[in-house]
Amino acid sequence: MSLSMYQASIPVFIRMLGNLSAILDKGAKHAEAKQFDSSVLVNSRLAPDMFPLARQIQIATDGAKGCAARLAGIDIPVFEDTETTIDELQARIAKTVAFLQSVSAAQIDGTEEKLVTLKLRGREAQFAGQAYLLNFVLPNFYFHVTTTYAILRHNGVEIGKPDYLGSY
Amino acid sequence: MSLSMYQASIPVFIRMLGNLSAILDKGAKHAEAKQFDSSVLVNSRLAPDMFPLARQIQIATDGAKGCAARLAGIDIPVFEDTETTIDELQARIAKTVAFLQSVSAAQIDGTEEKLVTLKLRGREAQFAGQAYLLNFVLPNFYFHVTTTYAILRHNGVEIGKPDYLGSY
Repeated sequence: MSLSMYQASIPVFIRMLGNLSAILDKGAKHAEAKQFDSSVLVNSRLAPDMFPLARQIQIATDGAKGCAARLAGIDIPVFEDTETTIDELQARIAKTVAFLQSVSAAQIDGTEEKLVTLKLRGREAQFAGQAYLLNFVLPNFYFHVTTTYAILRHNGVEIGKPDYLGSY
Repeated sequence: MSLSMYQASIPVFIRMLGNLSAILDKGAKHAEAKQFDSSVLVNSRLAPDMFPLARQIQIATDGAKGCAARLAGIDIPVFEDTETTIDELQARIAKTVAFLQSVSAAQIDGTEEKLVTLKLRGREAQFAGQAYLLNFVLPNFYFHVTTTYAILRHNGVEIGKPDYLGSY
């Protein structure tokens, strides 16, 4: 079977969001063990002008659902960006995974040339589907998953590369 | 044209290694402007038991050249892991890009089912080519590029998401 737009996107997002959820759970357990409020982790950042953990997860999930919906040509599910706890962030990840699971290979495959338009930093950017996925969505998605990992790791949560990669 | 193993790997690595090089250059210029030794950045890490910046770049480049060589069925170029300066890390990135550019689409395309065996944490892991690329190489590659970015950003280097994403 040859590589397809579906294979390179939806199952990849679902796998990595599962790993993200597991990492986040280790963050919650760490806070519990050390008896500090886990909202400290939710609000942590690597630099004063970088986004905190909650926003990293909002953007990672936005990237995945936006990609799936744009390629499939369906409405992007709107999530309010109101999460302030690890439980709420877990619920957002779960909602994103449920949406991704509702999108079929038939809806995504063959979208290599499909025109995708999005607003980026105040101006419109246009991509063909393949460039959108490979040059924009995936680097961005991995950026925010990895930054979430880095924030937790920087705060002493005992996670390692196998948690990030998951089973493969 | 449909998505191929080549398209999903080699040009992606080359683009992101170009962005990594540009980010690293901003790190060097930052050190120069602030008059501190740029080896501070090379040795920086986000947690005491995480790898420093130099190792992040070694692993990112290893991932890219290893993937290209394994899928193409050719020898993996061996680089000594001896870089201690930003210039040396830039040279490693350039050598990796030159190797990636020497690999053709014909060598990579059609490797979706090709068996790839590697030693991971002391045991052998076997993958089909597509799973190797999507579930192991790409998440790992992006992890180390993003962590390099995060280390620089955490140390005050003025870089932003557009530097990481590059032109798309």
